[in-house]
Amino acid sequence: MTVAVAVASNLANMSARDHAIWLFDELARMSHDGVGITRECFAEGEIRAITLVQKVAEAEGLTTRFDAAGSLIVSDPDDDQSKPAIYIGSHIDSVPQGGNFDGAAGVLAGLLCLIRRRREKRRAAAPVRLIVLRGEESAFYARANIGSRALFGLLTTKDLDVKARGNGKTLREAMAGAGIDIAPIEAGSRLFDPAQARAYLEVHIEQGPVMIARELPTAIVTGIRGNIRHRKVTCRGEAGHSGAVPRWLRRDAVFALADLVARLDEHWSRLLERGLDLVITVGMVGTNPNEHAMSRIPGEVSFSFEVRSQSHDTLEAFYELFRSECRAVSQQRRVMFEFDDRIYTEPATMDGGVVKALVKASEKLGLPQELIASGAGHDAQVFANGGVPSGMIFVRNANGSHNPNEAMDIDDFLKSVDILYTAVSETM
Amino acid sequence: MTVAVAVASNLANMSARDHAIWLFDELARMSHDGVGITRECFAEGEIRAITLVQKVAEAEGLTTRFDAAGSLIVSDPDDDQSKPAIYIGSHIDSVPQGGNFDGAAGVLAGLLCLIRRRREKRRAAAPVRLIVLRGEESAFYARANIGSRALFGLLTTKDLDVKARGNGKTLREAMAGAGIDIAPIEAGSRLFDPAQARAYLEVHIEQGPVMIARELPTAIVTGIRGNIRHRKVTCRGEAGHSGAVPRWLRRDAVFALADLVARLDEHWSRLLERGLDLVITVGMVGTNPNEHAMSRIPGEVSFSFEVRSQSHDTLEAFYELFRSECRAVSQQRRVMFEFDDRIYTEPATMDGGVVKALVKASEKLGLPQELIASGAGHDAQVFANGGVPSGMIFVRNANGSHNPNEAMDIDDFLKSVDILYTAVSETM
Repeated sequence: MTVAVAVASNLANMSARDHAIWLFDELARMSHDGVGITRECFAEGEIRAITLVQKVAEAEGLTTRFDAAGSLIVSDPDDDQSKPAIYIGSHIDSVPQGGNFDGAAGVLAGLLCLIRRRREKRRAAAPVRLIVLRGEESAFYARANIGSRALFGLLTTKDLDVKARGNGKTLREAMAGAGIDIAPIEAGSRLFDPAQARAYLEVHIEQGPVMIARELPTAIVTGIRGNIRHRKVTCRGEAGHSGAVPRWLRRDAVFALADLVARLDEHWSRLLERGLDLVITVGMVGTNPNEHAMSRIPGEVSFSFEVRSQSHDTLEAFYELFRSECRAVSQQRRVMFEFDDRIYTEPATMDGGVVKALVKASEKLGLPQELIASGAGHDAQVFANGGVPSGMIFVRNANGSHNPNEAMDIDDFLKSVDILYTAVSETM
Repeated sequence: MTVAVAVASNLANMSARDHAIWLFDELARMSHDGVGITRECFAEGEIRAITLVQKVAEAEGLTTRFDAAGSLIVSDPDDDQSKPAIYIGSHIDSVPQGGNFDGAAGVLAGLLCLIRRRREKRRAAAPVRLIVLRGEESAFYARANIGSRALFGLLTTKDLDVKARGNGKTLREAMAGAGIDIAPIEAGSRLFDPAQARAYLEVHIEQGPVMIARELPTAIVTGIRGNIRHRKVTCRGEAGHSGAVPRWLRRDAVFALADLVARLDEHWSRLLERGLDLVITVGMVGTNPNEHAMSRIPGEVSFSFEVRSQSHDTLEAFYELFRSECRAVSQQRRVMFEFDDRIYTEPATMDGGVVKALVKASEKLGLPQELIASGAGHDAQVFANGGVPSGMIFVRNANGSHNPNEAMDIDDFLKSVDILYTAVSETM
């Protein structure tokens, strides 16, 4: 699939700021869906955005090619390509009716960093490359990090057989349609050699409210939280007439759940005081609508459970605490808890040396050197767990992500480009 | 509507126990619906059951008539009818697919008490009458206690216009079809003169598990719990990415609700220790299925709230506590609570003298003299609040009510008849 993309003729004369504004506007214009931004992976939206990056890079004299997973690789022809490279990457796809900055900010930060290096003829020990990853969002094919997983041999036949929501094409068909050779991906071959990468750096908007609350334009990520989840836990007690069963004879499922959540909240609060990284969520709760009534003691309530942490040990320890509190509540309130499959997602730790280099760069620039955990998943997780020393820079952003109201200030964004530039030029 | 009902020819020779068994069997046979018992009010099921009572009463030489609300009144022609009577009453209708004992046990207890008095030619100061009330269950026309409310001028035009679930007939049409004159009922006239009633006594199966747990075949009711309810309270916080929002920035609706319920449970437990009569229920709980997800901090959760007590003051005090804890949780967890209309149902206190007489009768019979609160509503509530000194006897029953598994032992039932008999003959 080829798409026509025009590049402004006066780019070369633009300031970095104007350049960034023009690029974000151009991206938004080409992927507006009427409500928000849609850049479906391995489809027109994503391809058009990649083509824009490619055209702009080439207009600056940078070299472009596509790797085995369809990622666009942008290099500086004057770098010494024989040495392991510093990759600056992120994804260019979006969720349907999403925002313009989730993913794309990291791609444009890398692109602007490479352009600045080239314009300023700044060279350092390692070559610097931009890698524009694809299909990071799980919105279309259920699986997240499709592009980076493909590079590390982590995409399964089952993943490839999933049909897109909407057009019903399988991921395999969509990737093949975008010119990607499926065979080595399905074989689970490693298509990216960690030995050829000195580091992987990723800029991303923060998807939570911490940096807004703490007034940090940029921050350095220490790790990406993994999680342990249950989609559905059912607490079973005994239904009964609300007027006729006194407290001592009740087996009330809702009071039992409230007790459980209050206990978890208490533990959470104490563990935070001890400095652990931890978030707990019970996102879905419901009594059974077929049986519940205002005057019926609830005999059953279902809920989801999620614990997230950057630390595997904290995850497992809190999960044990959760199960142990379920046992205690069971006994005290004469209810039973039934658990569906436990789902585990591994946390990823950012590389200590890379984090230090990013902090040092921030310091040189007079920017905050605050460390922050990433609650959401990122391609950096796949690179880090694949053996590439990785680091991330978060940019302040209001209103979360995956919605058209993402709000990143262009000046905050430019600070992240400065950090990237300083890191790859001086501190790494 | 007339229905054919046959009465066994050998009733006169039966023991009270065999008589009771035959009556319950006969009632069950004529109202079995394939799953449980259905005796729809002002319709064939209820009419057939009333006719059975009428025939059996007449076969024993008792007199029958219908009052202005369609209740069957059974009297002993040898009683002095000029004095205020002791009414023994209950209802004969049932919920759909319900049990055989809820309501009918009280009617048959009264009938058997009158038969025993007549056979034993026992006379006391007050005449004793059975009143077979209609439409006590709210299952068909939403409104409970239709028959007794009609007698006390408490049935509104709105009540009369409600259509039955199922056949779509209005209550007005159903009552008129059963031969009842609607005009005085709709006018709100008082059709029962409290001055003509010395007392109202009602036997009913317990609808909770207390008497089973405490091994009480019979117990004396002190009052009927009223309640304050909200069908829907909504707790609103702020949705967010479960990984990206730390505890200090959360406005988690589910954690707020858990906190609230845990606080109410704590108060409940303490107030019971202080001897207050109180039950609290949160029967329906749910996050919004259109927005909830495992990894989304719940921005909203809805729940129902109910407090029941025999005491108006306890109801109001606990409700104030509930609202005050909502305010405290709002402030601490930065959520908002939205309340729909508050619904108030007045409690009813059983008459002290009547309760004493029932306790004394129990004592004479070597039965427990335990006092118990009624959580469910009963016609006795309408009589008590209408100015008639009222009392109730509960009979032990397993598996609650409103289901085909109601389980009352016939020997426990006969003990309640003994209490009625002793009370009306000796202790009142």
